[in-house]
Amino acid sequence: MDAEEFRRRGMEMVDYVANYLENIEQRPVYPDVEPGYLRSLIPTEAPLEPDNYDDIIKDVDRVIMPGVTHWHSPYFFAYFPAATSYPALLADMLCGAIGCIGFSWSTASEATLVTLLAARCKAVRRVQASNPEKSEAEILSKLVAYTSEQAHCSVERASLIGGAMIKKVPTDNNYAVGGDMFKKMLEEDKAAGLIPFYFCATLGTTASCAFDRITELGPICNKENIWMHIDAAYAGSAFICPEFRPLLNGIEFADSFNFNPHKWLLINFDCSTMWVKKREDLIGAFKMEPLYLKHENQESGKKRFRSLKMWFVFRMYGIQGLQAYIRKHVGLAKEFESLVRADKRFEICAEVIMGLVCFRLKGSNRLNELLLKRITKSREIHLVPCQLSGRFVLRFAICARTTDSRHIQQAWRHITQLTFEILQEPNH
Amino acid sequence: MDAEEFRRRGMEMVDYVANYLENIEQRPVYPDVEPGYLRSLIPTEAPLEPDNYDDIIKDVDRVIMPGVTHWHSPYFFAYFPAATSYPALLADMLCGAIGCIGFSWSTASEATLVTLLAARCKAVRRVQASNPEKSEAEILSKLVAYTSEQAHCSVERASLIGGAMIKKVPTDNNYAVGGDMFKKMLEEDKAAGLIPFYFCATLGTTASCAFDRITELGPICNKENIWMHIDAAYAGSAFICPEFRPLLNGIEFADSFNFNPHKWLLINFDCSTMWVKKREDLIGAFKMEPLYLKHENQESGKKRFRSLKMWFVFRMYGIQGLQAYIRKHVGLAKEFESLVRADKRFEICAEVIMGLVCFRLKGSNRLNELLLKRITKSREIHLVPCQLSGRFVLRFAICARTTDSRHIQQAWRHITQLTFEILQEPNH
Repeated sequence: MDAEEFRRRGMEMVDYVANYLENIEQRPVYPDVEPGYLRSLIPTEAPLEPDNYDDIIKDVDRVIMPGVTHWHSPYFFAYFPAATSYPALLADMLCGAIGCIGFSWSTASEATLVTLLAARCKAVRRVQASNPEKSEAEILSKLVAYTSEQAHCSVERASLIGGAMIKKVPTDNNYAVGGDMFKKMLEEDKAAGLIPFYFCATLGTTASCAFDRITELGPICNKENIWMHIDAAYAGSAFICPEFRPLLNGIEFADSFNFNPHKWLLINFDCSTMWVKKREDLIGAFKMEPLYLKHENQESGKKRFRSLKMWFVFRMYGIQGLQAYIRKHVGLAKEFESLVRADKRFEICAEVIMGLVCFRLKGSNRLNELLLKRITKSREIHLVPCQLSGRFVLRFAICARTTDSRHIQQAWRHITQLTFEILQEPNH
Repeated sequence: MDAEEFRRRGMEMVDYVANYLENIEQRPVYPDVEPGYLRSLIPTEAPLEPDNYDDIIKDVDRVIMPGVTHWHSPYFFAYFPAATSYPALLADMLCGAIGCIGFSWSTASEATLVTLLAARCKAVRRVQASNPEKSEAEILSKLVAYTSEQAHCSVERASLIGGAMIKKVPTDNNYAVGGDMFKKMLEEDKAAGLIPFYFCATLGTTASCAFDRITELGPICNKENIWMHIDAAYAGSAFICPEFRPLLNGIEFADSFNFNPHKWLLINFDCSTMWVKKREDLIGAFKMEPLYLKHENQESGKKRFRSLKMWFVFRMYGIQGLQAYIRKHVGLAKEFESLVRADKRFEICAEVIMGLVCFRLKGSNRLNELLLKRITKSREIHLVPCQLSGRFVLRFAICARTTDSRHIQQAWRHITQLTFEILQEPNH
């Protein structure tokens, strides 16, 4: 394919993409295929000679699309948003063409891992400074990290990778961690000879969008030399609106902060940003022989040229446009919340602060599991569940850029219709 | 921006991209700006209201392009290739639009880290099974990983992250690790009570494209319960050609294997593939509470939908097209090698097996550093150096898809011209 053919095919592809996104809501949001369906539809080996481009595009519709979960359908309410926007797509085309490799360290979704490792390194050095007789292995075996029992599992995984113990702090009725409970655990662990070194606080948990009380946790961490990392993966985007900034109070105590513009800031996957208070803490933890570093070392920190799409989006939407976008999503979540509250068969399971509504049918977990199973089977909308206080709960997350009031209303009609059917069945 | 405007702007962007790639060789390959140059060219804050799209595109030329290193210029000979092709760009447009998030564990450039952690876990379990009295911390402090002194620094970093000791095995005259030297280190370390658990072999090192002798290393690793990981990041793509397969002999001993199609297989960044012999070794090392895993856990293993661009490239080039591409690059490297060998002032510093030529001026390191400095300053071609046996060496890597014989000839004329000038100078 030469530049001339690329021009022609590129224009066709732009049109294909525009049509796909314009008409995405006609497609069932969730695929009706079994894992492995693709195997029988495609050859077992790559072609020896080039295929025809038109055949490939036909195959996109024939073999790829049937297996796709349409994350940008306005009927997608699962997980959290995977942001997208036209300017971001345009910028991504340019990123791909320039294809220059950014050398950088971090700002990835591995923020938790990177900060935990930096904190581990810092803690070992601090303890060794005052106890030179202690071996590194001995210190490592005493280190303990903390996070909320509601925190994302990546925190647990980071500690597993870093070889550090992790303890989960119980949450209050709002599924948030406060200072009292954390302090209690700390005192016990210190008395047992452990060395607390890291706390990962969450602003906007995955399950229910709860906010740990960092105004209480921060001073404790600072006093005890505990690195406080803030994971605001989803909710972080909302702080572009002044009315949500009070949820950031206490941020001044944090050692590091991460959020994912690819979740809720109209920048398509992947794009994750990290801030760290003391740059040298991070660099110091991973530094190697200077000579080595000079020419090649940066390679393993390679990143795509993602900043270009942020730049396009910021400029094309403006701060006001981004604020309006966040507010619209939060408004749609409130709209859905009102619908749920007005139906006495249902209950809201966690305070609705941002774009996530946790709800369930009053009744058994089995009943709610059944409802979700029917929702998934019908493929009209897509939700995932979570567990709160031992209860099976449905998460309704406002995800797509194009989700509107009518999609919320339609989703609710659909849910209540399935509920009606289930409740009619004998032995439901 | 609505779908209609996206269609129009998308077509403009396709044209911009085609023009950029068609005329890339007119641009100086290396930018003439200071780090931070961007700061004064752009506002300190994002705009409150949307900017005009035309202004943004003008700014791409005004503020972005002057800072770009043109990785796809045929005069780019630094690092290793960052692959690109028109079909991959088209597929990436579609990936972005579908924007569906693949849930997967691994197959990233973190392959070394992931396999080292899996090996660590396996080793701890094995040692504990026969020595139940030993604590995990005790075992961890005895674990030792190995790699070539020529291996990429990411291996060292992985061991740093995993908290395991790493030892570098000296290489032979070809900068490759053989069985004898490794066996000697092993015996000494075992006698000292250490527990060898991981060996990262390289097929195609970064510095000189050397191949560790895995037919010798593999049986040792297998016998000693040492996980053998193979890092073939660059050279792996070449195994699509039968004539390079003998370099893969011994692969049957490997526990895991990684290569980066984004380096040399026409698939633009990023795209890295990993194979592991026993899937359960990997899954077992990172497994957590099943309930947790079920609905949300997969999120931290999220990946872009990269397979689509591999599929487009495989189909549009066919295996024969990809083979021809690899062979062309290797041929260009041989062509450059001949030019160097024909000039008595220069020497070749490592066997030329694939698309990389390591060469230097006979003389001091200082002289070669000066030559590279002049090359960089002139901005006509771009190279990076490496160190081999204490000598400062220039790496000439065939990188761009469009590099041709005339670019090689021109690059060599340029290098010899600068050499001539330097040698004329008093006290060079």
